[in-house]
Amino acid sequence: MPKIEFEPIGIFKSCYLDKFGTPRQAGLVKESEGLLIIHPKFQPELSLIGLEGFSHLWVLFYFHANGDHKFHAKIHPPRLEGKTMGLFSTRSPHRPNPIGLSLLKIKGISDAGIQVSGIDLIDKTPVLDIKPYLPSLEALPDAKEGWLSELNSRSLTVTWETEKPQDLQLLDLIENTIKQDPRPQIYRESRADGQAYRDSHAIRIHHFDVHFRILPNDEASIFKINSI
Amino acid sequence: MPKIEFEPIGIFKSCYLDKFGTPRQAGLVKESEGLLIIHPKFQPELSLIGLEGFSHLWVLFYFHANGDHKFHAKIHPPRLEGKTMGLFSTRSPHRPNPIGLSLLKIKGISDAGIQVSGIDLIDKTPVLDIKPYLPSLEALPDAKEGWLSELNSRSLTVTWETEKPQDLQLLDLIENTIKQDPRPQIYRESRADGQAYRDSHAIRIHHFDVHFRILPNDEASIFKINSI
Repeated sequence: MPKIEFEPIGIFKSCYLDKFGTPRQAGLVKESEGLLIIHPKFQPELSLIGLEGFSHLWVLFYFHANGDHKFHAKIHPPRLEGKTMGLFSTRSPHRPNPIGLSLLKIKGISDAGIQVSGIDLIDKTPVLDIKPYLPSLEALPDAKEGWLSELNSRSLTVTWETEKPQDLQLLDLIENTIKQDPRPQIYRESRADGQAYRDSHAIRIHHFDVHFRILPNDEASIFKINSI
Repeated sequence: MPKIEFEPIGIFKSCYLDKFGTPRQAGLVKESEGLLIIHPKFQPELSLIGLEGFSHLWVLFYFHANGDHKFHAKIHPPRLEGKTMGLFSTRSPHRPNPIGLSLLKIKGISDAGIQVSGIDLIDKTPVLDIKPYLPSLEALPDAKEGWLSELNSRSLTVTWETEKPQDLQLLDLIENTIKQDPRPQIYRESRADGQAYRDSHAIRIHHFDVHFRILPNDEASIFKINSI
């Protein structure tokens, strides 16, 4: 089949600087924020008119941080603890066409761009398209969500070994991001000697490295915050 | 910004053979049907495993029937009766990256493909990606839908001057498709002499041409059905 070429319409500035720690879906961490900047050639001063009346928008983007991956028809979704699933019944970024689809909340629109929250995009993500969300057609609360409905909604309990940030929004952002358990499956497993595969982890949020370790009973303990 | 290249993962077989008559959004005509065929190289026998548990899926596709269009930052949405709106606050197919996003109902999955309904895709549409719909994150009935909330939900009344099809599903499909008023803005206007711009119209559904004319008081009268 013939290839189709697209050019990004803009770029995403995210509070998440790395893949590790970025939420796996939009809407999971309400405090997360980003700025969507439309390229001047697409005349945002005109092309965004009317968007301010919508509360949410779809962002279609390119999974630019995927690395080099071959096509796998079946994959191991992080929440399935080792079981496999057909790729197209998941939202995995490793798809034949690595296009992401995220429903984000619109916080404000200005000359700088579209301020959004509840994000799952990494900093510098190329944006392919944005579309208004249409609740009258796209809000189907009774839709069936297959294998996802059988999962336990397990989340980590976050505790602090170091001083908490004074900024309460930053505090919530850090805690709610770590609560999602950012570890890939491999880091959730134990080595042959029963020790954790890796003792500690760090995620980059805004200009901080946040270091934490996983303790028994699904506890995540934050022990250090550095400015980058 | 560097271009990004995608290759279709499959093709869509639709009951709508032409752009004219194809509903403007997914979910508007429940009786409409199509078959989404995944290319064998993407191993549908494996990559679709698990999808049968979902009731709805997102289809990301290429607007292949757009014709030649220049970028316009403001457009005339069909339902705004001549008023303009910023392109990115609409779902117009004429976008910098002509990627469509449709939420379709899954009717069944077989070796032939994914049978879906409530479609707004034209026959032979190249499909870029499919993703399961996640109601727990994507069903937001209270979201605000901007300028769309101020529109009158005007639809046509459909009457028959010719014999109705015996097949009741086909009958509903035809009536509900025409009810949406497929005419572009230009055909809704009158000429200087007060006559309709065009007297009659025809849409192609399955292997039929369905001819109708618009009468006063938003009535659409079907006067002929031909097999193609």
